[in-house]
Formats: sequence, C-alpha cells, structure tokens
Amino acid sequence: MKSHTLLMPLDMHLHLRDGVMLETVAPLSSYSFSGAVIMPNLVPPVTSKEELVAYKERILNATGNRVNHEDELDFEMMDMDYFEPMMTLFYQHYPREFLEDVRDEIFAIKLYPAGITTNSEGGVSSFDLDMMRPTLEAMAALEIPLLIHGETEGFVMDREAEFMPIYGMLAKHFPNLKIVMEHITTKSAVEMLDKYPNLYATITLHHLLITLDDVAGGMLRPHLFCKPIAKRPEDREALLSAALDAHPKVMFGSDSAPHPKDKKEACGCAAGVFTAPIALQVLCELFDRHGKLENLQAFVSDNAQNIYGLCPEFKEVTLVERPFTVPSHYGTVVPMFAGETIGWSIEEVM
Amino acid sequence: MKSHTLLMPLDMHLHLRDGVMLETVAPLSSYSFSGAVIMPNLVPPVTSKEELVAYKERILNATGNRVNHEDELDFEMMDMDYFEPMMTLFYQHYPREFLEDVRDEIFAIKLYPAGITTNSEGGVSSFDLDMMRPTLEAMAALEIPLLIHGETEGFVMDREAEFMPIYGMLAKHFPNLKIVMEHITTKSAVEMLDKYPNLYATITLHHLLITLDDVAGGMLRPHLFCKPIAKRPEDREALLSAALDAHPKVMFGSDSAPHPKDKKEACGCAAGVFTAPIALQVLCELFDRHGKLENLQAFVSDNAQNIYGLCPEFKEVTLVERPFTVPSHYGTVVPMFAGETIGWSIEEVM
Repeated sequence: MKSHTLLMPLDMHLHLRDGVMLETVAPLSSYSFSGAVIMPNLVPPVTSKEELVAYKERILNATGNRVNHEDELDFEMMDMDYFEPMMTLFYQHYPREFLEDVRDEIFAIKLYPAGITTNSEGGVSSFDLDMMRPTLEAMAALEIPLLIHGETEGFVMDREAEFMPIYGMLAKHFPNLKIVMEHITTKSAVEMLDKYPNLYATITLHHLLITLDDVAGGMLRPHLFCKPIAKRPEDREALLSAALDAHPKVMFGSDSAPHPKDKKEACGCAAGVFTAPIALQVLCELFDRHGKLENLQAFVSDNAQNIYGLCPEFKEVTLVERPFTVPSHYGTVVPMFAGETIGWSIEEVM
Repeated sequence: MKSHTLLMPLDMHLHLRDGVMLETVAPLSSYSFSGAVIMPNLVPPVTSKEELVAYKERILNATGNRVNHEDELDFEMMDMDYFEPMMTLFYQHYPREFLEDVRDEIFAIKLYPAGITTNSEGGVSSFDLDMMRPTLEAMAALEIPLLIHGETEGFVMDREAEFMPIYGMLAKHFPNLKIVMEHITTKSAVEMLDKYPNLYATITLHHLLITLDDVAGGMLRPHLFCKPIAKRPEDREALLSAALDAHPKVMFGSDSAPHPKDKKEACGCAAGVFTAPIALQVLCELFDRHGKLENLQAFVSDNAQNIYGLCPEFKEVTLVERPFTVPSHYGTVVPMFAGETIGWSIEEVM
C-alpha cells in the first residue's frame, strides 16, 4: 500500500471560531497539524492583547494542550499532540507602542477590507497610505507580517484581480514588510508572486479542487460556497501549478471555516468550506494523482518554515492510500466531501 | 398617481409545470397576461400530439378557461380572463409527417441540449446538421419556430457565449427557420441579433435586474439561482439596453420557473426564479425609472406580435405607481422580491 509521511504539517490560515464550535473543530486540526495561523474574525474581532491571550488559552484548552502554564506541562502529550496556535490580531491602525507591547504574543496581523467576509464589518474601509503608514512601518520594524484578505467590493468574479494594485502599492511602499495574499483564487494573484519579493501567498485545498462550476454550474451547492468565491478553470490551473510545483512563496492555508449546518443550508447561506479534518488526506491524493507527492512537504510545511522562520514542534503524520469515507458531519458542521469516499487516510500521527 | 396601461401583455417563455403546481401558478399568469409560450419540459417531456393537447386542456382548466369545447364558451369570461397557452413540443428529430399532423396544435418547438437544465435529460446531445436537417427543413417549410435553450456544457459563465457559433450555424443553414435564442443573458447574444435576420431573443425580468453578484456576491441566494446563471454587469447592461430601447427582435419571456420552497432552499437547490405574479409591475417600475415607459408595450407584446404574427385576445392591464408588498409565497413557491415592497401595482385588468 502506498504511503507518505509529512513532517510538521502547518495550516497557515484557519478559522476556529469560539465556544462550542471551537471545542468541536480545534481537535480536528490539532490532531494532524503541528500548528496553524488562527484568524481573528470573532465577534467582536480580536484587537487587544488580553483578548488574544485569552483566545489562545481557549484554543489550547480545546485542543487538550495547556502548555502555557509551566506547572501543567506534560511532555508526553507535547510530543504526541502539541499544536501551536499562531495568533493574529484583527488589523486596525494600531500605535507603535501597542505593537511593541503585543509583539511577543502575536504571529501576524490580519487585514480585512470592511464587510468583505464573515465578521469583517470592522475592517479597513479605505487603503489610504497616509492613514496606514504609521502602523505598517511599525509592523515592518517589528517584523510583524501583514496577512490580507485581498478583495475589492467589485463584481464577485473580479474582486481579487481588482485588488492586485493594492497589493502592489503596499509591497512597493513597505519593502521590509512581509505581506501574505491570503487564500488566493486567481491566476493574477499567482503572477504577483514573481513581481514583488515581499509578497507571499496561501492557497486553500478547495481552491485547488473546485471552480464556480462546482458551486453553481449544476445544482447550487452551499457547502462549496466560500469567499473568495471559486473562480475560472484557468485560475484553478494556475493555483494547482504553483502548489504542485512547490512554488517557494506559496503555503498551504486551509481557510477551513466551520458554520453550523443550518447556517449553510439556509436561504442566504454563510460563506466557508470546512476542510480541516480531511485536508492532508485529500492533498496526498491530489499531489499523488499528479505525480508530485514529493512536493507536498514544501507546500504543507517547509515553505512556511522558510518564509516565516518557524521551528515547529515535531509531529510526523503518515498517510496511506486507503479509502476513507468522510463523516456526514462533525458536530453541527458538514465537511467537504461529506459522505463521500476519498482515496487516502491518516495511518499514524507521532 | 402615475399610471400606465399595457395591451395584451404576452409572456413568451413560461414554465407552468403540472398537477398541483400548475393549479397554483397558472392563474397567476392568466390574470395579467393575454397568453404565454408554455415550455414542454415536463416529466416526461411533451413529445406527442396527445400529450400536448391534454396538457393544454389541463392548463386551460387551471386558468378557469374551457374555451376549447365550443359548448362551454362563456363570452364574458373570455373578454375578462381568456389566456392563450401557446404550446410547444420538446425537440426531437421528428419526421415531417408528424410535424404536419401536429402543426395546428403547436406554436413552436423547444430545443434543449441534453441535461442542460431542469428536466432536459432527453434533449439534443450533438448539434449534427445531418441529423437535424430533415426536422429543421420541415419546421421551416411548415413555419414552426425553433426556440432554443442555448448553452454548451462549458464553464458556467461561458456556456451561453460558447453557444453562439451553434446559433450562427443554424441561422445560416436554415434561413427560412425562425430561431429564438431563449432567455439570453449575455452581451454576445444581444450582438447576434444584428448578424442574422432569422435570429430573435427573449429576455427574462430577472436577467434585466441581477448579476452573479446578487446570487453569490454576498450570502448565497438560492431564490435567485437560475439557468442560464446571471452573468456580469456589462452583460446585464446590454440586455437592459435592448429591452429599454425596444429592440424589435427582443421579446419579454419571464422564464418564470416555480419550484417548491423546500427544493429551492435545500442543499443542491433547483434552478429557477419565480416572477410571473410580479413581472409586469416590476417591468413598469424598471422602464419608468429609466424614462422608457413608452417602450414597454413593444417589449411585452408588440414585438412578439410582429415577430410571430400573433393576434392575441384583447386584454388591458392598468398599472399604477403604488407600493405593493410581494407575498412571502404563493402556495409552496417563493417569488422574486418575496416580502419586499415594489413600487408599482396592478390597478385593473379588463
């Protein structure tokens, strides 16, 4: 049976929510990933050191890790199960003193244009360089990466492509700021990677697999509805090439985004695809089908380690080419491929 | 109060379904329209004279008209309420003798590419001229118009534009055949009208109003999900210009397509927007807002009369600029603008 081992898989873009939903979904990521970049778009969004530290604590509790209190350290558990939540703040025009104070607690700052996706109402309403300069200069000086949800308010199929000049402007004016184009969905975004040395990108699993055809080409499929929306076949091809060829500026970020089933199947369905529990298995199947399994390690971990200078806790995930039937739901959440059989399974995590 | 009178409004593309659904929706069209072209995609589709005649009878019963039996003629009712179901057959490669036999019962033949929309599995799987020639030549000789759902199996946003060469080929090879591009959604289709004298088009209400943004740009809105899917802003602009300027080759066809609420809001929602009961009111509002109310008569009746040589029964519908709150549902069907207030109401039908 074909098998493949991944070392320290990282999910560089993850939504864990809070409360009961956090309890449901956090263990599904911590089981197979060494760590994940945690999005701050809670209600209200994470904008203070206290909120961030408290949220990290809740995440660690939900994953069964309580290693932030030294007296509770359990080394055996750490070896097996430790999961590092890499915390982000919700972008605002923060003063430098605040950023200095919070620096050691945060991994990055996530910027949302106002209202562009779930719980982003408090985001940035105009990309005014003079307004943003003090914060972005302080972030560059303190080496705090800027993660961006890059969409304009334009026509849904053009929103990401229209945002490219903003990425270009920011990358050019803040050459020492590390800027990550999150969950890119277009050929235009892939092409940006080679234009600016300080621009990087994450790509989700679902955008490697689907186009708008899968969402609205047959029946309407709410569980594949996400933001940014899946684009055209040529866009998916560009994303797939970048991932399969292990483009060194591209990292896996699932953007796994749980919503309760009733919110997804209601009239006016919420945006998000839930992939955390099946991401590594489906990535193995995808890379193997294209004869590129040897490049998956770069996509799911090494590139992120190089880009961000990370040293994740040791975790080794062995996957095998054995069919796995995806559960119809995890708690109230319906995963991608619910009830379908995928080709690879997780054999062992150590 | 502003008012506007329409004479003999015609809906040149309508789905009435069958059974209980037919009973629910037929009176909503017959109330305000003089007649409608009835689509044949029942299960099974309408492919014989007997089925077609029986279906017409069921429609007339559902609208309260039984004028096909002379002894039941009620002239007062005819004046007020008569509604002409213009019947279509589901395209197959019919022999000439069959078409001659059925000629007097049918208005047109509707062609679906196989599997392209609701109940179209038995449609045409390849546009082979040699296969189609005998039927299309007979249709041209017998002056039976060909109505086409023009989409390929390509990427959902390209399906209609990709179909244009097929329209061109058919229009060129069968210059005496009247061909109608049904429910067009793109600028490419509008441009085809000026290239071939025997090509015409219907346009729905919803494609004059919405783009893909309305379906999937914010939350996912299943009640606006239809086939062909709503396209880009520049496509809607082209459709709107053709309608507002009363392009003589363009006719109103609502493509009003009822589905029960549970089929629309389920995971895997069915395609179709239900507009029949509010179409004339919203068209008045739209044309008035653009200062083109004087062109609405051409769009909703005169063009179709000229193109097809129709003489509809007299019906006069007076609309006024008075707010109307659209019901949340008609039977099990949720209409467009459900629960919202539109600007115009029907004042009187006579």
